Amino acid sequence: MSLKVVAQKEVWTADSWQLHELQIETPNGQVVTKGMVNHPGAVVLVPIRRRETGVEILMLQQYRVTLGQTILELPAGTREWGEDFLLCAQRELREETGFRADSFTPLGQVWPAPGLSNELLALYLAEGLHPDPLDGDVDELIEVVAMPLPELVAMAQDGRLQDAKSVVGVLRTAVYLQHN
Amino acid sequence: MSLKVVAQKEVWTADSWQLHELQIETPNGQVVTKGMVNHPGAVVLVPIRRRETGVEILMLQQYRVTLGQTILELPAGTREWGEDFLLCAQRELREETGFRADSFTPLGQVWPAPGLSNELLALYLAEGLHPDPLDGDVDELIEVVAMPLPELVAMAQDGRLQDAKSVVGVLRTAVYLQHN
Repeated sequence: MSLKVVAQKEVWTADSWQLHELQIETPNGQVVTKGMVNHPGAVVLVPIRRRETGVEILMLQQYRVTLGQTILELPAGTREWGEDFLLCAQRELREETGFRADSFTPLGQVWPAPGLSNELLALYLAEGLHPDPLDGDVDELIEVVAMPLPELVAMAQDGRLQDAKSVVGVLRTAVYLQHN
Repeated sequence: MSLKVVAQKEVWTADSWQLHELQIETPNGQVVTKGMVNHPGAVVLVPIRRRETGVEILMLQQYRVTLGQTILELPAGTREWGEDFLLCAQRELREETGFRADSFTPLGQVWPAPGLSNELLALYLAEGLHPDPLDGDVDELIEVVAMPLPELVAMAQDGRLQDAKSVVGVLRTAVYLQHN
């Protein structure tokens, strides 16, 4: 039993990813057409500050043209093809929050949408923040907002935080900080 | 400050979603091209059984042609355009696991990939399972595997569970069951 890709072609290309059209042979011999976003991957950042009142995370309020609304999410950014994930994380943190970090701790990787994309997200906890901004993309409208970790954990669990990568990043951070 | 969609056209269509090409005017007046997956949304199911040894979740081992590998994930399925999310959840549970459920409890919604898609995932806890299979899609290769909730929570937290929607579903289920 297998699904075999018998043909694959690029049908559209964007700055950072391409749409591939696949012909797939199913176990019963039928050939079906499927679209796949061929994606270089991206990083998700959890920039934290330890305050006397507790840990806070630098979140973004970002306008998403796909949704027609501004959403609350962790800083994140698409990797260049072949770029090292950690270098990408360092660059995106400066572009999106205006800070560099002394340390980046991996919080694992996730596939956001394996049904239609090969995108892989690498998550990093970023600590020891210092102002060091880098110009961002012209098509990004973002505002940085510091929020307490316990509030974000509650929002991730009760559904108020609706961005999947942010739910994963916030909850993994909470567990990591319990042990470190 | 805004990002304004000044043109939008469909450039490719699959069975369940389409690729739209957007022309977006940025705050400085520049027009940039962007691709968007126009998606009907999907459901994610957390089918649970309460055993003497504790709660277990029916997970899938599913071959993902996008990744060229079999991954561990929660049952999930794409909605028909206009289909009620709950009806979709009831259908997909039977198709993917062979069970119907007495009750479906909403566990919130998430956007899996708001940078490139408008897909919304609606998560449901499914309880009271009874055999009642429905034929699935020809291009799906899946195997149902029951796993203990505590093991899945550990995997969601330490990075072994790599499917984002499944991390969200498992961790929200753990919190829900602590209070119900």
